[in-house]
Amino acid sequence: MHLSAITHTSAYTHLTWQAILDAHARIAPRIHRTPVLTSASLDAITGARLFFKCENLQKTGSFKIRGASNAILSLTEEEAARGIVTQSSGNHGAAVACAAAWRGVPAFIVMPKNAPRVKVRAIEAYGGKITFCEPKVSSRNEICSRVQSETGAALIHPFDNDQIIAGQATAAKELLEEIPDVDAVFTPVSGGGLLSGTCLGAKGLRPGVLVFGCEPERADDAYRSLSSGALQSLDSSDTIADGLRASLAPRTFAILRDNVERILLASEEEIISAMRTIWERMKIIIEPSSAVAIAPLLKPGAVASLALPARADGAPPKLGVIFSGGNVDLSSLPF
Amino acid sequence: MHLSAITHTSAYTHLTWQAILDAHARIAPRIHRTPVLTSASLDAITGARLFFKCENLQKTGSFKIRGASNAILSLTEEEAARGIVTQSSGNHGAAVACAAAWRGVPAFIVMPKNAPRVKVRAIEAYGGKITFCEPKVSSRNEICSRVQSETGAALIHPFDNDQIIAGQATAAKELLEEIPDVDAVFTPVSGGGLLSGTCLGAKGLRPGVLVFGCEPERADDAYRSLSSGALQSLDSSDTIADGLRASLAPRTFAILRDNVERILLASEEEIISAMRTIWERMKIIIEPSSAVAIAPLLKPGAVASLALPARADGAPPKLGVIFSGGNVDLSSLPF
Repeated sequence: MHLSAITHTSAYTHLTWQAILDAHARIAPRIHRTPVLTSASLDAITGARLFFKCENLQKTGSFKIRGASNAILSLTEEEAARGIVTQSSGNHGAAVACAAAWRGVPAFIVMPKNAPRVKVRAIEAYGGKITFCEPKVSSRNEICSRVQSETGAALIHPFDNDQIIAGQATAAKELLEEIPDVDAVFTPVSGGGLLSGTCLGAKGLRPGVLVFGCEPERADDAYRSLSSGALQSLDSSDTIADGLRASLAPRTFAILRDNVERILLASEEEIISAMRTIWERMKIIIEPSSAVAIAPLLKPGAVASLALPARADGAPPKLGVIFSGGNVDLSSLPF
Repeated sequence: MHLSAITHTSAYTHLTWQAILDAHARIAPRIHRTPVLTSASLDAITGARLFFKCENLQKTGSFKIRGASNAILSLTEEEAARGIVTQSSGNHGAAVACAAAWRGVPAFIVMPKNAPRVKVRAIEAYGGKITFCEPKVSSRNEICSRVQSETGAALIHPFDNDQIIAGQATAAKELLEEIPDVDAVFTPVSGGGLLSGTCLGAKGLRPGVLVFGCEPERADDAYRSLSSGALQSLDSSDTIADGLRASLAPRTFAILRDNVERILLASEEEIISAMRTIWERMKIIIEPSSAVAIAPLLKPGAVASLALPARADGAPPKLGVIFSGGNVDLSSLPF
C-alpha cells in the first residue's frame, strides 16, 4: 500500500497536486462533468459496491479530451501557431483534433491503418488531418517524427507528457470528490497516461486508496513491466481493445511502479462478455477498452481475491471503475 | 399556452402537486436520480440547447419504476397481500415485478406475445409471473381481468391510475429542478402516463413551460385524439416503438387536452435513424420508444417550426427531452 503520491518526482516526471488543480480549472469549463453511475445488478454479481465514472459519456467519447485539452490550452501562442501533431489509435487523435479546433490551430494525426473506421471518421469530423501508419510502435514513431518535421507542429504525445497525465488525473479527482471513501480504483492501462493520472488524482484526495490497472492478456506489457521491475515493450497487438495497444513509457512506468497495486488481466472473451454485460445492464455504450476495466472483476471470486483491507463499517468494498471511452463501430459489434 | 396545472381536477382525475411531492419522497430512496446529459453535436444539429433526462439509465431500464413503485408502496398491507396484477408491453411489467419484490408480494404480468424477449426475461428475472395475450387491447384487458379474478391481486394499471401518473411526474420534476428555465419538454406518448405526469411535474415548477408529446405515425391515437377533441382508440400497432402501442385512457386524455401543446409524429424510419444517432453521438442505449421523443426534433427546421416564444436572453431555446427507456434486444438491432 502506498500512502502518498501527491507529488510524484522522478528522473522522468515532476507532477504536483497543483498541476492537477490547474489542469482541472483549465479544462472544466470545456468538458463534461461525467456522471458516476451505479448498478444494483453488477453489485450483486461482484459482491462489491461499484461506482462507474462514465468517461464514455465525455466529449469526443473518451477521457482523452481531458489531457489533450489541458496540454493544448497550456501551449504558448508561439508553440501552438503551427498546429499540433500526435500519434493515436483513435481517441487521443479525436481529442487532439477537437482541442486544436477550440484553439483554432490545425491538428495532424498519425494513426494505425487498422484503427476502427468510426474513430477515423470522428477525427475527420473535428477537422483533423490524418496520416496512416503501420500498426506498430516503430512505424508510428517514425511517421510521427516525419510529420512533425514537415509541419513544425507541436508534438502532444498521447501519454508521455506531464500535462496529459495531469489532465487525465481529473477523471479520478472527480470520482473521488463524489465518492470520497472509495477503497480502490480500476482503470484500463495502455501507455499508462490514464492509470498514472488516476494514481495521482485519486491519492491526492485519499492517500490510502488502492489503484489497479486492467490490461488485455494480448497486450500485457504493463503486467510484465510491473512484475519484472523493468520496462517491457510490446511492438504490436491485435487485442479487440483497440485503445490499449500501446506500451508504457519510462515516465508512466515510474509512476505506476510506485503507485499501482497490481495489473489485472482479461482475455479477449472476457472483454467481449464484459462489454455486453455493461451494455445490457447499464444501458450505456462502452468500447472494448473500457470493458477491460470491469472484466477482471466479473470473474467469480475476483473481488475477494484482491484481498482489500476490510472497511471500518464492515460493508462491502467501494470500488471505482473508470470507463475510458464509448467509441464503437455499431456496424461491427463483436456480439 | 397553459399557465397552471398544478392541480388537475376533472371527472377522471384529481392530481395535486402534493401528490407528486409525496410520490417523490416515497420513491427517491429506491430509484436512481438519473443524469441530465447534453450533447454539443445534437445542439448543433437541432439549433437548440437540449437536455436529456436519461430514464433509460433508471432502475429496471425505464421510467416505469417511478409510477409502479409509487403505486405499489402506497397500497395498504391488505391491498398488497394477494399480489399485484398488471398488463404491460414490457417496461411497466418489469417495474411492477421489481417493486412487488421490494414489497415482498407476487407480481402477475399480462403481456402481448410479441413483446421483445429481453423484456420477457427482465420480468422473469424480477420474479414476475407472466401470462401472454394477443397483441390487442381487447385481449390484454380480457386476460388481465381473468388473472385478477383468479388471484385476487391488486390491479395496477400502467397509466390509468393517479398514483402511477404522480410517480411518472417525478422525472420531469427532477429535470426542471436541474434546468429550471427550460422552455419546452418532449416525451413519448403511449397510454399517456408519462406525458400526463410530465405536464404536471414540469408545470408545477414552471407554469409557462410548454409540453409536447411525441408519437409514432403507426400508433397515432394521441395525435388523432387531441386533433379531433374526442378520444380515439388504437386496437393494435406494429410500430418498432414497442413501448408505445397502447392508447390513451379518458383520465390521461383529460390531462393532455388541457396541458399539451401538440403531438409530434415520427415515421418508423425516423425512429430508427434517431435511435442510431443517439447511440453514436451520446454513447447511451435508448430503445425505439425513447427515440420517438427526439426524432421529430431532428428533422430540418423542426425546432423553428415549433414557434416557441423567444427567450428573454435571446439565446436558442432550452428543450428537455425525456428518454423513457433503454431495454433493447442487442441480438436484433434495427440497424
